[in-house]
Amino acid sequence: MSLQPQSQTDSSHPIADKQGLLSAFRDILPDDAILYETEDLRPYECDGLSAYRQLPLIVVLPRTVEEVQQVMRICHAQRVPVVARGTGTGLSGGALPLAEGVVLSLARLKSILEIDPVNRTARVQPGVRNLAISDAVKPYGLYYAPDPSSQIACTIGGNIAENSGGVHCLKYGLTVHNTLKLEVVTVEGERITIGSDALDSPGYDLLALMIGSEGMLGVVVEVTVKLLPMPERAQVVLAAFDDVEKAGTAVGDIIAAGIIPAGLEMMDSLAIQAAEDFVHAGYPTDAAAMLLCEVDGSNQEVSEHILAVREVLQQSGATEVRTASDEAERLRFWQGRKSAFPAVGRISPDYYCMDGTIPRHRLPEVLKRTTELSQEYDLPVANVFHAGDGNMHPLILYNANNPGELERTEELGGRILELCVSVGGTITGEHGVGIEKINQMCVQFEPDELEQFRAVKRAFDPDELLNPGKGVPTPRRCSEYRVLGTHNHSHHDEADA
Amino acid sequence: MSLQPQSQTDSSHPIADKQGLLSAFRDILPDDAILYETEDLRPYECDGLSAYRQLPLIVVLPRTVEEVQQVMRICHAQRVPVVARGTGTGLSGGALPLAEGVVLSLARLKSILEIDPVNRTARVQPGVRNLAISDAVKPYGLYYAPDPSSQIACTIGGNIAENSGGVHCLKYGLTVHNTLKLEVVTVEGERITIGSDALDSPGYDLLALMIGSEGMLGVVVEVTVKLLPMPERAQVVLAAFDDVEKAGTAVGDIIAAGIIPAGLEMMDSLAIQAAEDFVHAGYPTDAAAMLLCEVDGSNQEVSEHILAVREVLQQSGATEVRTASDEAERLRFWQGRKSAFPAVGRISPDYYCMDGTIPRHRLPEVLKRTTELSQEYDLPVANVFHAGDGNMHPLILYNANNPGELERTEELGGRILELCVSVGGTITGEHGVGIEKINQMCVQFEPDELEQFRAVKRAFDPDELLNPGKGVPTPRRCSEYRVLGTHNHSHHDEADA
Repeated sequence: MSLQPQSQTDSSHPIADKQGLLSAFRDILPDDAILYETEDLRPYECDGLSAYRQLPLIVVLPRTVEEVQQVMRICHAQRVPVVARGTGTGLSGGALPLAEGVVLSLARLKSILEIDPVNRTARVQPGVRNLAISDAVKPYGLYYAPDPSSQIACTIGGNIAENSGGVHCLKYGLTVHNTLKLEVVTVEGERITIGSDALDSPGYDLLALMIGSEGMLGVVVEVTVKLLPMPERAQVVLAAFDDVEKAGTAVGDIIAAGIIPAGLEMMDSLAIQAAEDFVHAGYPTDAAAMLLCEVDGSNQEVSEHILAVREVLQQSGATEVRTASDEAERLRFWQGRKSAFPAVGRISPDYYCMDGTIPRHRLPEVLKRTTELSQEYDLPVANVFHAGDGNMHPLILYNANNPGELERTEELGGRILELCVSVGGTITGEHGVGIEKINQMCVQFEPDELEQFRAVKRAFDPDELLNPGKGVPTPRRCSEYRVLGTHNHSHHDEADA
Repeated sequence: MSLQPQSQTDSSHPIADKQGLLSAFRDILPDDAILYETEDLRPYECDGLSAYRQLPLIVVLPRTVEEVQQVMRICHAQRVPVVARGTGTGLSGGALPLAEGVVLSLARLKSILEIDPVNRTARVQPGVRNLAISDAVKPYGLYYAPDPSSQIACTIGGNIAENSGGVHCLKYGLTVHNTLKLEVVTVEGERITIGSDALDSPGYDLLALMIGSEGMLGVVVEVTVKLLPMPERAQVVLAAFDDVEKAGTAVGDIIAAGIIPAGLEMMDSLAIQAAEDFVHAGYPTDAAAMLLCEVDGSNQEVSEHILAVREVLQQSGATEVRTASDEAERLRFWQGRKSAFPAVGRISPDYYCMDGTIPRHRLPEVLKRTTELSQEYDLPVANVFHAGDGNMHPLILYNANNPGELERTEELGGRILELCVSVGGTITGEHGVGIEKINQMCVQFEPDELEQFRAVKRAFDPDELLNPGKGVPTPRRCSEYRVLGTHNHSHHDEADA
């Protein structure tokens, strides 16, 4: 990856006719739905990966699906690229604008259209915030399961684009497992339905294909999500370890014992200390690593599973095993975990969050190798992650003002991701590829596999107008990266390791 | 649908050079891996939908992935269509050969390559039988969850092609939810990896796209499945109803009570009587409908849920609620359900099995309307189905020797499927579209949506060599069906209903 701005796309789009476009948009949209002055465009120049910035040509904010269709028809006719955007909380630069492109904000499509408590579904517009769905269905004793850390702010449309997970996806799955149906506007402005209200749908599984496609196949204008009944009770166990690898092994032991925790999170020493200093969660600051294991379900089920979890943790060599004594303590335990990123932000001028995913049983060795890499590059790495899923979020601590440190951070980040690939893992668990990890796609996939992705893209968007330059690298980018990137030496090192 | 043989494909493939093909295959395969005499080809002329029959040109039975690749390269070079096949248990004609095409049997690729009890996965070849996976991993206390009724015979490769479900898919999901990774040979003979051993994979979700694609996008040569720990205990409750609609309502009530049964099956009067006569399961033969609700998990969990299920069933107006008194009775209850199709086969010269899926809460009205349609067409319909999923398997009883009865059956079947579509459901839950339901695809989807399917197909198989004529209708077929088929009057009737 590169933390520095660079050419976002290898495909060349002609210089757009800004005045012509504005005039076409004015025919279909009210004035307050069209932004084009630099000061108005500024808030849209980046998403959560703020190292990359680019002002778009124009931002449009349609209020209806028909307006979205008309915007797409205009852009398609004029061959102008379109980047769809929710609230811009994405961490991989997936909503980074193009200088000659339009940003299509879906923020104003924010109605909850229907709640069906019998069929346990909700039909919502893409601009609805993740947490707003659970809030709206709470009176029915239901909730929407995927819970990314940004759930107060992030939209369901963005969740669809990135196939978002969260603390509870170990038990309840990713966005793709909690979505039934999509209404999509194609690059040509046609509205199509993908999926159905029933269990399964005939034809190719375009629903799963669309979810996680990072805005590159179509514009989602309506989402039917599955809802779950709120569990009767939730309880959490905290376990301390004097060794990171032991904690990694304990993760596998819990799963192997037949328990599917609602959440199973791990923090290492650096993360524990930062979080404790910040929110005083009651964490064991002398531990090398800590696990938080949450179990939910009926009262009896939870009591039974908590006993089993405690036993496994003790047998795995935990130095301390503590069950939250009440709901307040349970929430405090989680507050520490959830504020770990900002907590690390307090102890380092800059940090960089990775998102590699590995097979769970390779956790101990990957943690060990990450520590070695951290020493080799002389950059501290704090580990905070969804251990149960093998979804790691190593945070590299650095200071951009120290000469050369940003470059070292980039290289270390690349090697950590390539380490994940070498053990059978992937370069992203839930943050997406976006612009950030596009080079690592050349490591993750063979040329034939990337070509298959490109063929799928052409099946939806032959002119590459939808979020071009993201997600799937061009062959040229991969050949350049293979020659110039950190890939060659590091990948071979890992393969030998 | 049509139960009579017809042109299987609208795309025209040239007359193949049989001798040239045979000679090319002989260079790469041993003699016993190539079948071409009519008597040898006969067993391959149909799958489980035996109303459709067609002898292929040649059948090949490779033993290795490399041989599969070479077969594909030869067929691709000579532009000869290929139909991949497992053990031919499919119910929608998905493995129906083409007169000018090659059948690629994967039956000899039947090794279990690796069992990983820690990561809970198994890596198997496509010709491995579904049940053989669970048998092989049993020593580790694990099993493979999707359990189609044909699981003794059907292969995992076929399960991938059809995205198979089974009695337990309500709780444990379809094949797509239980698969991690595929090795696929493309139409050009290249081998690519789709998915990964980790939780999620970057790039478009080709894994989900491939699953359920009915052999039309590539040839699966290796499957990594997820395994689950065997539940500590399973228990089943049988409930009798004096009214079919009440039973349909009870299904929704159980789910609404927050219980996810491992299985929730429904049988109506005709099916109950046929099954009872056949296997003496102890069913209530005077009931209008019957539910079987299975719960699995830990001992405590099961006890608790069985109590809750009994209470809901009683409140829903069940005339009798009976918990299996021991394991033998539990298995007997299931034996009745699992032999319901052959049991119906004993009381009628012919029967035709449908596979529509509807939103669960529309169950009562769809059952009512099905009864009315059955009366209108004067053809008995037995209902046996996965009620929890809304996946209906109405069996139309008919006698092909009575003039006009086959045609009436076809029309009634088409109207039942279109009824499913009209309430927001789909024309197939787990049997696939194949050749059988290709006309109904014109009802299920809008022209734009079908065109998107075709574009995806072209992204994998531009020359339409992989199982052509199945799954997705051509525009011409749809326009003909709209003019000539039963579609027009029946669909509009349902829309008004």
